[in-house]
Amino acid sequence: MANFGFSSLRVVQPYDVAFREARSAVGAAPLLQAAEEFGSVAEAVADCRLVVGTTSVGHRELQHPMRRLEYGSRLIGKELSTAPVALLFGSEKYGLSNEDLSHCHWLMRIPTVDTSLSMNLGQAVALCLYELSRDPKAALAEPERIRRATAEQLEQITAQLLEVLRRSGYVNPATSGSTEEKVRRLVRRLDIAGRDAPVLLGMLRQILWKVG
Amino acid sequence: MANFGFSSLRVVQPYDVAFREARSAVGAAPLLQAAEEFGSVAEAVADCRLVVGTTSVGHRELQHPMRRLEYGSRLIGKELSTAPVALLFGSEKYGLSNEDLSHCHWLMRIPTVDTSLSMNLGQAVALCLYELSRDPKAALAEPERIRRATAEQLEQITAQLLEVLRRSGYVNPATSGSTEEKVRRLVRRLDIAGRDAPVLLGMLRQILWKVG
Repeated sequence: MANFGFSSLRVVQPYDVAFREARSAVGAAPLLQAAEEFGSVAEAVADCRLVVGTTSVGHRELQHPMRRLEYGSRLIGKELSTAPVALLFGSEKYGLSNEDLSHCHWLMRIPTVDTSLSMNLGQAVALCLYELSRDPKAALAEPERIRRATAEQLEQITAQLLEVLRRSGYVNPATSGSTEEKVRRLVRRLDIAGRDAPVLLGMLRQILWKVG
Repeated sequence: MANFGFSSLRVVQPYDVAFREARSAVGAAPLLQAAEEFGSVAEAVADCRLVVGTTSVGHRELQHPMRRLEYGSRLIGKELSTAPVALLFGSEKYGLSNEDLSHCHWLMRIPTVDTSLSMNLGQAVALCLYELSRDPKAALAEPERIRRATAEQLEQITAQLLEVLRRSGYVNPATSGSTEEKVRRLVRRLDIAGRDAPVLLGMLRQILWKVG
């Protein structure tokens, strides 16, 4: 919850020993301390205008619309801008009961390959809150790229590398023209970053000194 | 991993006691049993053509391109169709070391509100694999809707309700025309599902019998 900016945790009839001894991750202690306890689902969601239950499909006879996380999250996101929404999770062991589910407007499921597999409660919560705070544009926009080396830097590297290769006897004088082009193309294909260019030049200079 | 259809788990120098005693979730035991152990990151990723490290930004001096999960997953997805990709996670406690990171082509981070907060390893893995297997179209396509009641069913409900209200003394005979329209509009706004219509009619019929 803290990772994705959600702050209002409400617990219904928590198992006292476990709840009192629950320890939060580093930095999330205030959230756990501010958790509110309720005696029933009805009381816990009383001020919410939308109540969404989470469940694996399983074999439950569905009396509710069931929505995939991706789509359900969009609906919740729209609602959240105007009214509080409750996202209801069941216990690790049993999930939500039919009585719990009857308080929900609709249900949401995490799309998994095999619905018979169980999912850890903490993981299920993380996935739902991640999807709720997910920015669809972030999948499309390319983040800041590493700046490429300039053509001048690439040509310096090419020249140094060729000199090393010549002095090492790699270059056949009869085909030195085509070797030069081959090396030049190779250096361009390496996609060298601007900040790596001086490092590579330094290495080549040192090798050049050694090969004499 | 099992929830999202990933099967190849490789562990580098696992802490033997913990690893031997690790118990998988229900249904995921074969995955854990098939886990391969390696002595180094280099050996573990040897056959992969892309190695992506996961990390929170933190204060680490970045020597790698850092990509958000949403964007990085798209790049991984493209690569996965042609070659094996390694997604590298560090230990719960320390994350990946700089040595580990030096084996990576680039890094990926989960977008959280506060990068100083730690995230549980299991949750981080679940989020990455969820995003990798996420279907962007699922956010847009509306799943099967509950079929609405037919206009005929709605009119039956309206008629029954009006009859109950008349016999209960709710309807003022002087304004019964406008009351009828008010009730008819109210029933339409309720967005009654087809399968709920017989239930509501049954309730109204019983109440009608009681009010005589």
